Amino acid sequence: MATTITNSASTQEKLARARDAAGKLALLSTEEKNTLLLAMADAIEAQENAILEANRDDLETSGLEGAMRDRLLLTPSRIQEMAKGVREVAALDDPIGETLAEWTRPNGLHIRKVRVPLGVIGIIYESRPNVTVDTAVLALKTGNAIVLRGGKEAARSNQRLVEILAAVPGVPAGAIELLDSSTRQTVQELIKARGLVDVIIPRGGAGLIAFVTENSSVPVIETGAGNCHIFVDESGDFEMADRIVINAKTQRPSVCNAAEKVLVHARVAAEYVPRIVQKLIDAGVEVRGDETSRRLASELNVGAATEQDWYEEYLRLCMAVRVVADVNEAISHINRYSTKHSDSIVTCDEANARKFLRGVDSAAVYWNASTRFTDGAEFGFGAEMGISTQKLHCRGPFALAELTSSKYEIVGTGQVR
Amino acid sequence: MATTITNSASTQEKLARARDAAGKLALLSTEEKNTLLLAMADAIEAQENAILEANRDDLETSGLEGAMRDRLLLTPSRIQEMAKGVREVAALDDPIGETLAEWTRPNGLHIRKVRVPLGVIGIIYESRPNVTVDTAVLALKTGNAIVLRGGKEAARSNQRLVEILAAVPGVPAGAIELLDSSTRQTVQELIKARGLVDVIIPRGGAGLIAFVTENSSVPVIETGAGNCHIFVDESGDFEMADRIVINAKTQRPSVCNAAEKVLVHARVAAEYVPRIVQKLIDAGVEVRGDETSRRLASELNVGAATEQDWYEEYLRLCMAVRVVADVNEAISHINRYSTKHSDSIVTCDEANARKFLRGVDSAAVYWNASTRFTDGAEFGFGAEMGISTQKLHCRGPFALAELTSSKYEIVGTGQVR
Repeated sequence: MATTITNSASTQEKLARARDAAGKLALLSTEEKNTLLLAMADAIEAQENAILEANRDDLETSGLEGAMRDRLLLTPSRIQEMAKGVREVAALDDPIGETLAEWTRPNGLHIRKVRVPLGVIGIIYESRPNVTVDTAVLALKTGNAIVLRGGKEAARSNQRLVEILAAVPGVPAGAIELLDSSTRQTVQELIKARGLVDVIIPRGGAGLIAFVTENSSVPVIETGAGNCHIFVDESGDFEMADRIVINAKTQRPSVCNAAEKVLVHARVAAEYVPRIVQKLIDAGVEVRGDETSRRLASELNVGAATEQDWYEEYLRLCMAVRVVADVNEAISHINRYSTKHSDSIVTCDEANARKFLRGVDSAAVYWNASTRFTDGAEFGFGAEMGISTQKLHCRGPFALAELTSSKYEIVGTGQVR
Repeated sequence: MATTITNSASTQEKLARARDAAGKLALLSTEEKNTLLLAMADAIEAQENAILEANRDDLETSGLEGAMRDRLLLTPSRIQEMAKGVREVAALDDPIGETLAEWTRPNGLHIRKVRVPLGVIGIIYESRPNVTVDTAVLALKTGNAIVLRGGKEAARSNQRLVEILAAVPGVPAGAIELLDSSTRQTVQELIKARGLVDVIIPRGGAGLIAFVTENSSVPVIETGAGNCHIFVDESGDFEMADRIVINAKTQRPSVCNAAEKVLVHARVAAEYVPRIVQKLIDAGVEVRGDETSRRLASELNVGAATEQDWYEEYLRLCMAVRVVADVNEAISHINRYSTKHSDSIVTCDEANARKFLRGVDSAAVYWNASTRFTDGAEFGFGAEMGISTQKLHCRGPFALAELTSSKYEIVGTGQVR
């Protein structure tokens, strides 16, 4: 039996409710918010069957298979994980109300810069229903209202999850709103709602992110695409380089912090290029290369990399290899072709490492480590809303503090100019 | 003799040059940047005559009069002020390179969050040529390249100023680029240059700001509009209230932090409304009011405020008065109608003051002070790029620190996931 979708208010009504809710959420105490979060975790567990039923409807209706089906699929253990994640967010420190700076001016005015919620956060995402819960609880923890626009494949799962979260006693009406996923119109309405919505965070593939960043009049935090590089310097430890390259490429090739390119210093290329190409091929990776790499590894199957290859985020077991003159050429190659996400140097030369760390214009720059560590949990944030690849507001993995703004509270005794 | 405008490169060429310059500027030391700034101040003074000549051409060509002409006009003392401002920026602390946070993960990875330049900043502004110098030096101080698109009335003044700044030995080519102001096309090209430009800051009237925020695909810091309120609470000191209202309205009515509305607590309205209306009229202010205010001040000339009045930023000697039930109604009125810029409560009741400071969702909220203090210099920042009325990236007056981003530098010993 298909779950009925009863959420029939217009987008404008939902956005207005969210705006109203934001005013109430901003005034909740940390304790009040945590009580709501713990009750949400309990409600998710208590309604496991209803969630699974809605999810079965989605799976049947969508007809998805393979990896796409797996992204949509909920299981009892995945629902347990959701609830556990909510309790973890409850346990995190509340950033709201923190004094960021305060000072007194010569005229006696006392100025305090205090951390406040952003207001209304819009999330546009694809098929994973756990994003619904993950983002809703991060928003609540930071006193923000949230407006969700998920993928149509997950419509019933998302609807049920939002109903469960919003029904927790004490949650202000409008705190968690879900937009109709059956039409692109709702995306359009959300990204044009400047004044009602304070930020849009797209979470999904490159096409979605490009559409939102190009068309939104609401400020956007751009997340996602990662064309990540490993540069093996002249003095790099080859065994360490092997480990890092293979890990960064193969441990989870479909994610944004997986590496896509290996750059090798010219002086060690004759030895290292054939070595790493062989190891990549052994690990099931398709290898492409520039002319020099192909010549050095001529015994092996290395395709010709085109100019387009240097820009590309493969997101699969494919990697391109290029020989560069030195660390300077590595830096300029990366700054030209990368998506400014995560890049790593393998070297024993501290001067080159420092030059690389400073010169590469990316959110996360590594010395002797895998790019796979660019992640909220790996950074120790306890949560993650996304990984920003823009420079405004926040950069790299972001979580609670980046879902806030600030305001100035100024106390005087009648001062005028 | 009209100054020849020789700056003929295309917008795309200028943006590409700025992008290249950004890489070089990011690596300059504080000392190198300050040396360039001091040389710029000297060059401005040395070329006073050339600047005045270009400005005379602009004044003649534009045919502007009155306040508009004054905005465009440069004089020897204004040029001295420009040079002085540049030296003041040189003397400020350099935020670049600051460690914002650092920690070591259980796996031994050392993570350092460091302050870095934004990259390329685009400024779109109107007729004041001093904005050219003010913004160019704030960008240079923070290691950013800047692309300027000024008003066409100031084309020759801006061109000459940019030539003088860019010609200082050691300034990387492309660090300060000026776009053609004779066509709107260059605005369009700048706001669509996502990937080449990291942020757009519009500085000007409401129309310009709305156009940029609605149409830019580059992230924007929205500045400007201020529909500011003063709420006179039941326990407010009337003499203090008079001083604050008159100052906030009349000291400089054309600026964004001037007050536009007075809200009066119902219990003191019978006494305070006629009093403040009389004082406003005495100060040459046109007064509008809601029905209650008009009844209470029926002896005086108070026009009827329409719904539109409550939204309006008059920017002139006009003010609307409204009676509200209490601090709660004052807060909800402000949160509904204001532009979230600056609002003030006049009260002796600390509980109401705290409620107002917390509940009003504006960049700057005051207790017993004029809204006119929302300003970089008044806050003690030593400089100001603008006043942000959005919540992303920065809010309220902003200067050097807000022209920066951050990156993560991560040092390991071969860690993989």
